[in-house]
Amino acid sequence: ETSGHSLLLFGFQNVQSGNVLILPGEFSHWHNMRVIVEELVERNHSVTVLVSTASTTVKYAKEEGFRFQFISVPIEESDFRAMWDKLIDVWMQYPNSSILETVSRGWTLMDSLSTYPSVFCKSMLNETNLGTLRQSKFDVVLFDPFTPCGDLLADMLDVPFIVVMKLFFGYSLERICGQMPSTPSYTPTQPVHFTDRMNFQERVQNFLQYIFHTLMFFAVMHVQMQNIYTDIKGEPPLMCEPFGKADIWLMRSYWDWDYPRPFPPNFVFIGGHHCKPPKPLPKDMEQFVQSSGDDGIVVFSLGTIIKNITLEKRNTIASALGQIPQKVLWGFIGEKPEYLAPNTKIYDWIPQNDLLGHPKTKAFISHGGSNGIYEAIFHGVPIVGIPLFGDQFENILFMKNKGAAVMLDFFEMDTKDMVEALRSVINDPSYKKNMMRISELHHDQPTKPLDRASFWIEFVMRNKGAKHLRVQAHNLSWFQYYCLDVAVFLLAVVGLFIFIMVKTCCFCMRKCCWRNRRKNKKE
Amino acid sequence: ETSGHSLLLFGFQNVQSGNVLILPGEFSHWHNMRVIVEELVERNHSVTVLVSTASTTVKYAKEEGFRFQFISVPIEESDFRAMWDKLIDVWMQYPNSSILETVSRGWTLMDSLSTYPSVFCKSMLNETNLGTLRQSKFDVVLFDPFTPCGDLLADMLDVPFIVVMKLFFGYSLERICGQMPSTPSYTPTQPVHFTDRMNFQERVQNFLQYIFHTLMFFAVMHVQMQNIYTDIKGEPPLMCEPFGKADIWLMRSYWDWDYPRPFPPNFVFIGGHHCKPPKPLPKDMEQFVQSSGDDGIVVFSLGTIIKNITLEKRNTIASALGQIPQKVLWGFIGEKPEYLAPNTKIYDWIPQNDLLGHPKTKAFISHGGSNGIYEAIFHGVPIVGIPLFGDQFENILFMKNKGAAVMLDFFEMDTKDMVEALRSVINDPSYKKNMMRISELHHDQPTKPLDRASFWIEFVMRNKGAKHLRVQAHNLSWFQYYCLDVAVFLLAVVGLFIFIMVKTCCFCMRKCCWRNRRKNKKE
Repeated sequence: ETSGHSLLLFGFQNVQSGNVLILPGEFSHWHNMRVIVEELVERNHSVTVLVSTASTTVKYAKEEGFRFQFISVPIEESDFRAMWDKLIDVWMQYPNSSILETVSRGWTLMDSLSTYPSVFCKSMLNETNLGTLRQSKFDVVLFDPFTPCGDLLADMLDVPFIVVMKLFFGYSLERICGQMPSTPSYTPTQPVHFTDRMNFQERVQNFLQYIFHTLMFFAVMHVQMQNIYTDIKGEPPLMCEPFGKADIWLMRSYWDWDYPRPFPPNFVFIGGHHCKPPKPLPKDMEQFVQSSGDDGIVVFSLGTIIKNITLEKRNTIASALGQIPQKVLWGFIGEKPEYLAPNTKIYDWIPQNDLLGHPKTKAFISHGGSNGIYEAIFHGVPIVGIPLFGDQFENILFMKNKGAAVMLDFFEMDTKDMVEALRSVINDPSYKKNMMRISELHHDQPTKPLDRASFWIEFVMRNKGAKHLRVQAHNLSWFQYYCLDVAVFLLAVVGLFIFIMVKTCCFCMRKCCWRNRRKNKKE
Repeated sequence: ETSGHSLLLFGFQNVQSGNVLILPGEFSHWHNMRVIVEELVERNHSVTVLVSTASTTVKYAKEEGFRFQFISVPIEESDFRAMWDKLIDVWMQYPNSSILETVSRGWTLMDSLSTYPSVFCKSMLNETNLGTLRQSKFDVVLFDPFTPCGDLLADMLDVPFIVVMKLFFGYSLERICGQMPSTPSYTPTQPVHFTDRMNFQERVQNFLQYIFHTLMFFAVMHVQMQNIYTDIKGEPPLMCEPFGKADIWLMRSYWDWDYPRPFPPNFVFIGGHHCKPPKPLPKDMEQFVQSSGDDGIVVFSLGTIIKNITLEKRNTIASALGQIPQKVLWGFIGEKPEYLAPNTKIYDWIPQNDLLGHPKTKAFISHGGSNGIYEAIFHGVPIVGIPLFGDQFENILFMKNKGAAVMLDFFEMDTKDMVEALRSVINDPSYKKNMMRISELHHDQPTKPLDRASFWIEFVMRNKGAKHLRVQAHNLSWFQYYCLDVAVFLLAVVGLFIFIMVKTCCFCMRKCCWRNRRKNKKE
């Protein structure tokens, strides 16, 4: 009997306590998903993280505020790790390896890459697991699409779901299953060698890359998923079924560090959601940092996925680090270099975000993983980038093009290159200034990325989806989507019209001629 | 020397005090722009509203917190009003008027419609006015694109600018100058007779409507603007110059009340920004409302633009209103009906938002103007819609399709139709329930629409634009945009390759045959 306004407030209405199921990715993908998990726990939701017993990254720890539920897979953790190592190996494109080597590496990889998803999905979606999961009555499923079958899991549990990702190869998943418009003429795609201002030659290359990624999506991703889904459900799924039903796409990027492009209303950009103001450092680390004086420090990490670096490369790097006046904190688990200058300390683990937020930090040497880059953006620290694989090249390239980074080639660089790069980034104020400009854009948003993510997760829970943000393109086939059926029909109508006109004219002309001829004859 | 994080906070950093120039539209367009003006004043910005001396709506009032600056135009207010009346007349599509009448009405309208913009633009952009405006050193220009030359004004003042609008005919302005993707297969356009789930026939119709609006944009809008801009600047502008430079597009819609479609990052949807919690009513009005008891009240307004309704129609309406148990508050300036039931009161002006927010309000009789509809959404009041012209038909149709409104035909309806419509909307709880669902979606957003608008206006002021949200499509021609140059090139390459292959094959075959023939001859 009352009007609505008094009951309704804008934003951040919490559901009492939601029940969230998370299917995370490995390595850095888990690190940033974990920030969302912790925020949801903070907001009084019950969170269950579903994880394979073979996972190398997602480990049970007693003190967490959330539950782990393990999927028992017939794969050893070491074999799973070996698969990742192989994948990285192929991806790293060693300059001295022959094409034959790369192909043979790729071949052995394809084998495990095609086995693992099937084994994982069948284990996860067996009746026992599904039964247990159904009993939990989840309100929403969040998953990383690099872990397979998250969409099928949500669909079989009959729960709305949210995708969390940065980007898929050539935006193929976003375009084909998310209905993000295709924009090859002004959005560069992998491998990105240029910005969004492309000349003709670059646009040709980019166009071919879109086609390649689209074909690969249909030929590999779709076929593989179709096989697995058919095995599990007994019938082949339609294209993008059930993936296309995703209510919200939480994209781990934003226009501070991505080329602007149009997107549907259910895409929410949360780039940098994992970044936080710095916490105090451990005591001994803080002492080491303070000992740097006015010169300040350099933070150095090539990520957690790479363990093996040749001794030669380690020595090259160590020697370069020894030649700058800054103190260097190097996070690295592998074998140490032979010689380490007194200004450099190696740690098994560094609190990267806290270090980058430290006022003494002058530069960040990074492989260009997106978590690290966003932390550097958040804290405004210029970058010396040494990309290794995947999207790291384009990540660093973007920062280089904005004048906020120097890029080095991991395989080609020598000590001198690295010293020069560090000196430029630290001493030339333009790098800091350009990085601060990006940092300002990052901080100048109407809401914080993590709040945005939480809002939409809670929205999906309290509204049982977000149907009003879903474009109807999801219900069209590709030829309907591009109006090809309409175009063919209209062309046919126009063609028929012209045909009839021409025929009629001809008929009239003939009649006319015939009469004239008769007249002429008579005369 | 310090890291960025301590200086930076997310969101709502105010510029000290910005200087904003506003070029508003007429009628309801001014009413909702005014809410933005008042919010900017509230946020300590200095606001100047630029207005033609012929304006029928935007009037000087001493007590405002903002400045008016008048553009002296050689047109009388009464002539300007007459132009609008003619426009509405043509637009209303009287069912009893012949095609000849409509065409002759349209013809006389075209004349004034083509004269006024030119006169207005030249007056606004003469050296004296520009000189005065330049001295004010504005930080941003906000304008309604239904008032001409706002973009040229901002460009000549060299100030970043923001467009405020709901939608243009067939989204042509948004698509052509804003680089919003074209989606005829799943976004219905004017005149909208269907939802975003279209069958083949509807998609054909919709596709033709897109083509029509696109052609009209080029043939009328573009040509007219080109003539005016050439007159003023001495050289013809490029397509969408300077309009395409708009930093932010503040769109007065949202997915609670619009069909979801993809959009570029610099489009911000602020639908319902003008709605507010209700203020107390004037004393006598509140008494009248309270006298309705449990039956409650009905709020009735056909907007401020229509003054003339035939006596017959007024009597029909008054008679229908007399037959319901609710009290009716009717906002109407024209001549009164002959007979008025005791439950109905006519007011020159009603505080529509406050009335719709009143707990006793049961229904809203509306012409379907977007301001009123959003107020009904905000307060969750179901609608009896009597659309008159423009986008009002599709506005009501959307609500009808969602089960939150009944639609009547202004010319065809009789007393019985109106009574039935009112009884349904008031007594059938589904209308209220469906309206509350839309209202919930409206209120369930991460930020309030007006805060979002203010944020991005202030963003543009403190960053001197919002370049990072601008897609590079703005710098491409249409054949580059659609990759047609690339496609032609690739087809040519493929064609050449096939040609060479075929020729080579032919050559080899001929060689082969010739040799064989020679052999055969020898034998």
